[in-house]
Amino acid sequence: MSAIKILSQRKVASGILTRLSFKSQVLNSTTTTSLYIPKSARGSSAKPALYWLSGLTCTDENFVEKAGAFHSASKHSLSLVIPDTSPRGDSVPNDEAYDLGQGAGFYLNATEDPWKEHYQMYDYITKELPEVLANSEFNICKNYRSISGHSMGGHGALTIAMKDEGKSYASVSAFAPIVAPAQVDWGKKAFTNYLGSVENGAKEYDATNLLLENGPFPELGTILIDQGTDDEFLDNQLKTELFENACKQVGQSKQINMRDGYDHSYFFILSFIDEHIQHASKAIKARMVNQ
Amino acid sequence: MSAIKILSQRKVASGILTRLSFKSQVLNSTTTTSLYIPKSARGSSAKPALYWLSGLTCTDENFVEKAGAFHSASKHSLSLVIPDTSPRGDSVPNDEAYDLGQGAGFYLNATEDPWKEHYQMYDYITKELPEVLANSEFNICKNYRSISGHSMGGHGALTIAMKDEGKSYASVSAFAPIVAPAQVDWGKKAFTNYLGSVENGAKEYDATNLLLENGPFPELGTILIDQGTDDEFLDNQLKTELFENACKQVGQSKQINMRDGYDHSYFFILSFIDEHIQHASKAIKARMVNQ
Repeated sequence: MSAIKILSQRKVASGILTRLSFKSQVLNSTTTTSLYIPKSARGSSAKPALYWLSGLTCTDENFVEKAGAFHSASKHSLSLVIPDTSPRGDSVPNDEAYDLGQGAGFYLNATEDPWKEHYQMYDYITKELPEVLANSEFNICKNYRSISGHSMGGHGALTIAMKDEGKSYASVSAFAPIVAPAQVDWGKKAFTNYLGSVENGAKEYDATNLLLENGPFPELGTILIDQGTDDEFLDNQLKTELFENACKQVGQSKQINMRDGYDHSYFFILSFIDEHIQHASKAIKARMVNQ
Repeated sequence: MSAIKILSQRKVASGILTRLSFKSQVLNSTTTTSLYIPKSARGSSAKPALYWLSGLTCTDENFVEKAGAFHSASKHSLSLVIPDTSPRGDSVPNDEAYDLGQGAGFYLNATEDPWKEHYQMYDYITKELPEVLANSEFNICKNYRSISGHSMGGHGALTIAMKDEGKSYASVSAFAPIVAPAQVDWGKKAFTNYLGSVENGAKEYDATNLLLENGPFPELGTILIDQGTDDEFLDNQLKTELFENACKQVGQSKQINMRDGYDHSYFFILSFIDEHIQHASKAIKARMVNQ
């Protein structure tokens, strides 16, 4: 395993925010991650963490700079792991469009050229990154984690948690997630390019389909979703109602908050991030007590 | 008075964040301001507000995106006014350096060419902007306001509050302020260019000097300052101790928190902004009760 390089480290809301990089074997590129460890979590043996998956065009820095999540993470003694949204670098295939290539990894394992050599975000997020952080000086716990994300990252969080059936993740939540990628343009384009067809994506990486096929997932507890009613992407790309209907159909416990007047931005995330951190923290603590 | 143009409006933390512009007579240019009005303050007759002055290179957007201040503003029912840091536009003189010209107005009234035609930030912040907002649909109260800022904006907040002797401002606070601009490179350069000499600046716009000459200012209550000990500019540009000594010399009530390990960034501001909003809110409320 390659060495972790510390890019920056600073004090925020009593905790330490670290930006680090390492050579990912899975992504076949150097990858950057931000990591927040609250003061109250320092020194504890292995730190439970919430993984945050960002949306299209983002790096690890958008959430770090704009979500205002650190006071809440401190309050709940929950570490935050904020990965990049795709492999990066000159040798990594890219596309001119904002919704394909670098910044648009869609948290899946690509099977098609030219993407498959680097675009293995599913394995990176679920296996390699937790392993690297668990074995690092930061001592982030592999067993007690939750996952959340925004837009494309909400899609990532939901699909990752459901494919895992709650074995590794105590809870999942999302802001404005793409809940049915196989039915919308962003997802169709990603699935066609990365996986060869929309059908391949529908089977493997579509939250609504995964829930209908394999749900409910009682181990995940209540799935929490916040969605702004003034989100410009709601009708065409997000389609929250498809997931809500699937939850009802299979009996999945869910709390879907349609937030009146909120948009798709990080201002929306900042408005409700505290509730998502609390949701994750509560689920992780319950699991720690019960196991 | 020219019409206010709404550039954007969005819901954040239950309140409304508006970005607006208007043609400033004082700056002789079109200027942009962000304005946050908490839900709890909506509909109230005239809204008390905290003016936030940003630092070098900033626009109104840095604080808005990075300070995480909206939950706190909502909690305290305090509106936030976040102006730009200088006049802007192709016809406004500029300089290639980051610490002179656009983005570096230093909150003073320039007396020298080519700056004086536009760089009248002191009059803009203290007179024109409060007047425009008081007479607008937003109904921001002219009489109940406080002021705070970061770095160059901390200098602005301190000098504006002290020159006014607390008549218009119920309180003042600052993050990592330039407290003695006439003694440091940033200030010397600004004063020389905008005012013709360091001496002119020392007399009119140097917080430490103003305090020594005209202080204490009991109407301002306790001056609150937060300063990170790992701030790269502390020793050469900020020199907090000069202001602290002046406070002691004239008997000015102050609370200067030297924050161990914090840097100069917005992460530092985010860490303690709640205390500054609370400080302003408390002072404004006390004044409202007493008058």
